[in-house]
Amino acid sequence: MPQTLSQFGEFPLIDFLKKQTFRKNKDVLEGIGDDTAVVSYTNDKYLLLTTDMLIEGVHFKKSMDAFYIGHKALACSISDIAAMGGMPKYALISIGLPAGLDVAFVKKIYEGMNQLAKMFGVNIVGGDTVKGNKIIINVSLTGEVKKKNLVRRSTAKLGDNIYVTGALGRSYINGGHLTFIPRINDSQYLIKHIKPTAMIDISDGLVADLRHVAKASRLKARLDQSRIPRTKNATISHALYDGEDFELLFTASAYKDEKLMRAQTRGIAFFKIGEMIAGRGGEVDMIDTNGKIKKVLKKGYIHF
Amino acid sequence: MPQTLSQFGEFPLIDFLKKQTFRKNKDVLEGIGDDTAVVSYTNDKYLLLTTDMLIEGVHFKKSMDAFYIGHKALACSISDIAAMGGMPKYALISIGLPAGLDVAFVKKIYEGMNQLAKMFGVNIVGGDTVKGNKIIINVSLTGEVKKKNLVRRSTAKLGDNIYVTGALGRSYINGGHLTFIPRINDSQYLIKHIKPTAMIDISDGLVADLRHVAKASRLKARLDQSRIPRTKNATISHALYDGEDFELLFTASAYKDEKLMRAQTRGIAFFKIGEMIAGRGGEVDMIDTNGKIKKVLKKGYIHF
Repeated sequence: MPQTLSQFGEFPLIDFLKKQTFRKNKDVLEGIGDDTAVVSYTNDKYLLLTTDMLIEGVHFKKSMDAFYIGHKALACSISDIAAMGGMPKYALISIGLPAGLDVAFVKKIYEGMNQLAKMFGVNIVGGDTVKGNKIIINVSLTGEVKKKNLVRRSTAKLGDNIYVTGALGRSYINGGHLTFIPRINDSQYLIKHIKPTAMIDISDGLVADLRHVAKASRLKARLDQSRIPRTKNATISHALYDGEDFELLFTASAYKDEKLMRAQTRGIAFFKIGEMIAGRGGEVDMIDTNGKIKKVLKKGYIHF
Repeated sequence: MPQTLSQFGEFPLIDFLKKQTFRKNKDVLEGIGDDTAVVSYTNDKYLLLTTDMLIEGVHFKKSMDAFYIGHKALACSISDIAAMGGMPKYALISIGLPAGLDVAFVKKIYEGMNQLAKMFGVNIVGGDTVKGNKIIINVSLTGEVKKKNLVRRSTAKLGDNIYVTGALGRSYINGGHLTFIPRINDSQYLIKHIKPTAMIDISDGLVADLRHVAKASRLKARLDQSRIPRTKNATISHALYDGEDFELLFTASAYKDEKLMRAQTRGIAFFKIGEMIAGRGGEVDMIDTNGKIKKVLKKGYIHF
């Protein structure tokens, strides 16, 4: 009997693709399943490869500012590179456009991408322009990272603290999902001064992405409700489950906490929100404001 | 007054993007405007970056065999890498899928991609899966080429012969646009034994793509109607203007013609179809079957 994608689910599909898909292991450190692929490059660097597709009506509306639609499209991929400790270098932009679309709208999209590209030294080296019935933007971004600086999601250690780089929740309501500046500066600071044990960017939601880290690291994660920074008017539920905050979520040895707290004065902010504990790999729970351990829901941003 | 994309035109849009878009020249040999970007890599190699977006209803129909939809999506990008004299290495696949789509259909798409990936040693290292109202597949492909083997479209020489690797026309009717095997083997043969002066793959149509070569090389191109190989039932008009043949179109010094003709016996076929002559850069004309010089139309595959 035919089964639809929404019945089958997104993560089972990704698992299937991961198993099914051809993969030589030589030269490939991370493949399908991570946000960014890590492949061999030069003697002291890895090449990072990541891609994000944004579709009108799903990730943005046509009524939104075209400048920020372009900005967001590129920012999502830069955020993926930041999460690996890397720097972005080259972008390819594929764009599907309705024939009747106003040219000025398209130019604005590229202005938004160009401004962000300049900010981080990204070179837009090519792309593909095709006809579509909706606006579709696909960014593929190539970056690099020094081998010694690579941070993966699978290497959190027992007893590590969990941190985020900013307030969470309501990014769709407050516009943060469109205007965010990817956390390259924070990532570069961390690489240089802290050496995080694991890192990911929050795209699916705090709990969903923390679960990815916990599962890959075979540990349990425990959040501390009172410490989770929230955007204005965000409830704890918003902070836990909303998607597209694009803050970095990372783990670091407890003894680095003092140094991380001192970094707050440098225009960069780190918030300790929990710790990695022994338990079933991939489990996440939370100490609530009364000091009681609470389960958290499995939900995160659902793609299908 | 607002102007729609179809009024503005695809190539003016690409020209605008080329001028507008941020581009550091260091490290970038070819950027926007070519099918494949060429950037610095190792001491003796360049990195090749290319991307292609396929949209249901534009590049394929849902009634077509899903296996070949996947095959085509990857084959288009491999063909771009072949045209530079390179070898493909890593692919990222972004896919937009309607929630109600049969999972078996999606799996078939990936089977088609995987089989082709295996054939050419391509490693599918990641991607993005999102919800869409149509099926959208974006492939971005990273390849490499030895510096000495790189072939560009801009370096055809006066007096060079023009060749194609196979019969042209009617690829939409005969299914060739879905089932073609990208001409990696032909390209590797050429790199090793011939060293073509310029090369491109025929995606927009013979005349349109030959015009790209002629314009970039600042020469005129003259086709010889009687020599242009056509697929079964294809008229000369089909061969000249149909899109998506995905044969290689290349130029080579006339003294290499004998060697190219001998190569016909090796399971690879090259067809001499014209020559590069003095004249206005980008002009294309044709000697018809009566020996008269005829103009050819400007038309090619129109994206908007």
